[in-house]
Amino acid sequence: MPVETMKWRGNGLEIIDQHLLPMREERVLMTTVEEVAIAIETLAVRGAPAIGCAAAYGVAVAALEKCERDHVVRAIERLRRTRPTAVNLFYALDRMSGILDDAFSSGDPLARLTDEAEAVFQDDLALCRSLSMHGAELLNDGDTVLTHCNAGGLATSGYGTALGVIYAAVEQGKHIEVYADETRPLLQGARLTTWELAKSGVPVTLICDNMAAVVLAQGKIDHVIVGADRIAANGDAANKIGTYGLSISAGRHEVPFYVAAPLTSFDFELATGADIPIEERETAEIHSQFGTRTAPEGIRYYNPAFDVTPAENISAIISEKGVARPPFASVLENWNVTD
Amino acid sequence: MPVETMKWRGNGLEIIDQHLLPMREERVLMTTVEEVAIAIETLAVRGAPAIGCAAAYGVAVAALEKCERDHVVRAIERLRRTRPTAVNLFYALDRMSGILDDAFSSGDPLARLTDEAEAVFQDDLALCRSLSMHGAELLNDGDTVLTHCNAGGLATSGYGTALGVIYAAVEQGKHIEVYADETRPLLQGARLTTWELAKSGVPVTLICDNMAAVVLAQGKIDHVIVGADRIAANGDAANKIGTYGLSISAGRHEVPFYVAAPLTSFDFELATGADIPIEERETAEIHSQFGTRTAPEGIRYYNPAFDVTPAENISAIISEKGVARPPFASVLENWNVTD
Repeated sequence: MPVETMKWRGNGLEIIDQHLLPMREERVLMTTVEEVAIAIETLAVRGAPAIGCAAAYGVAVAALEKCERDHVVRAIERLRRTRPTAVNLFYALDRMSGILDDAFSSGDPLARLTDEAEAVFQDDLALCRSLSMHGAELLNDGDTVLTHCNAGGLATSGYGTALGVIYAAVEQGKHIEVYADETRPLLQGARLTTWELAKSGVPVTLICDNMAAVVLAQGKIDHVIVGADRIAANGDAANKIGTYGLSISAGRHEVPFYVAAPLTSFDFELATGADIPIEERETAEIHSQFGTRTAPEGIRYYNPAFDVTPAENISAIISEKGVARPPFASVLENWNVTD
Repeated sequence: MPVETMKWRGNGLEIIDQHLLPMREERVLMTTVEEVAIAIETLAVRGAPAIGCAAAYGVAVAALEKCERDHVVRAIERLRRTRPTAVNLFYALDRMSGILDDAFSSGDPLARLTDEAEAVFQDDLALCRSLSMHGAELLNDGDTVLTHCNAGGLATSGYGTALGVIYAAVEQGKHIEVYADETRPLLQGARLTTWELAKSGVPVTLICDNMAAVVLAQGKIDHVIVGADRIAANGDAANKIGTYGLSISAGRHEVPFYVAAPLTSFDFELATGADIPIEERETAEIHSQFGTRTAPEGIRYYNPAFDVTPAENISAIISEKGVARPPFASVLENWNVTD
């Protein structure tokens, strides 16, 4: 497994602190719901599937704190308010909510909640491995992939979605190289994607986001693969800010643009991406770089954390069910129904 | 005038140190050619027209150091090696070279060289004002302009090209708002464009480069205007990395994409942009942010400082001669011949 993103320790949830990567690899044990909520809000743990897993474990942490139904219900409400865009958060919390009656009528609510959180985690791992196997069929030996943000082990239970596809192709014996967008403002590509690819021995070249169009024009890229935070029923996909612009550049250069995500990232309730809530984050992410202020006061800032790539810009959507080609609506409906 | 970028002081060339902006506004007096060359190489002074002006003054600085022809010739060669992409550098140094015989056969070579450098500077100011007046005709009251990097007073003798167009429109009484790309890796948009627009009272919103496609999709932008470091005879335009991707996004959203530059930025010797040399800069610009390392060792980096926007992506080229619409070749040929 490329990365151990998080692990249940009996006395709390241990995560790798993604703030400190790539310079320091440190793990932190969280023993309160508030710690878990803040870790999600501040992106110490991030990536749609990983947010879902951490939130599920966060409910178990609540039961550790105080094994009372009301306390756990309030914890779920607290966790639900951490981040609005990734639907995996709501999927995981709904799943935990769904077993509350069962848990609190059992002899050991904590054990029941912990088991369910562990199941959310293990399911994600299985889904990521499965979608990665499907996606790997799209890659040929010697291909170069461009990716944006981090949709790797760190963004999931440990294997990844966009990067999972690459890991699976490499496990099949294919030589794959990667270009990684640094992904402003929080540099998940620079800090996390390069780190985990290098750890896994996959050659990676880091570029600034605004260089992607150039490497596409130079013919260096065979495929673009990104993850998703929420995919609507028509295939519109919300992902880290910058994904939409990248999809336009990929299309202009006729490079296939793939979105890889487990069904837990799909929101079949939404007809299109227009209704996906887009989180706006604090302006300091843009005006201050690691303690140094680099833009003046007295001006305006706009800092959307995600954007929506319309289905028409997407060449294929990869999930544990297989590879969907456009038009997506009927395939995705089938994926939903047959589950 | 929006900014005093540089000023001849009799005992040397004074520039505003653009490294320190926007947090500190400090001027530094350079009294040796090496200081001028390093200021250009490290981007203490940057922007194609400003590089040309600084290099011209650098030749005068050489004569201050030692008023001998050989020394001045060596100084010109040193300055010529500072940066490869902006053609204004070579234009200005050729102009200074062209008067060396005259200067050193005159009674006061230093005065002659200083006068010529001052003429290069004053010419740039006049050209920028003239092109800005032409460009301002394209902007309507209430328009919002998106720009990339800094093509403002700081990038020129003090008035600007892309931002000059905005200043001229504002001087005509139009209300203009600006979105500025921060422009990784060196953040000229965040540090310089916001600073000089705010100083001039023009409302500006700072975004990361990868957010430009989103604000274009949201219909917030009426025009994109950028500067250029070198424009080929067919209209292909080299400019700060990220310009090409921005031109693709602008085209996708049918937002006019304008390039504003004086004829000193045109290279009529080059048939197309394919032959424009593109400077690659050190990888630290990507992996370290103001003293903090943010990407790991042991990976690759790619850091081109410029890209080439093909003429087909450009809606109009604005120079002191007027506004050229595509196809550009015949208009540009005319601009060249009639000078």
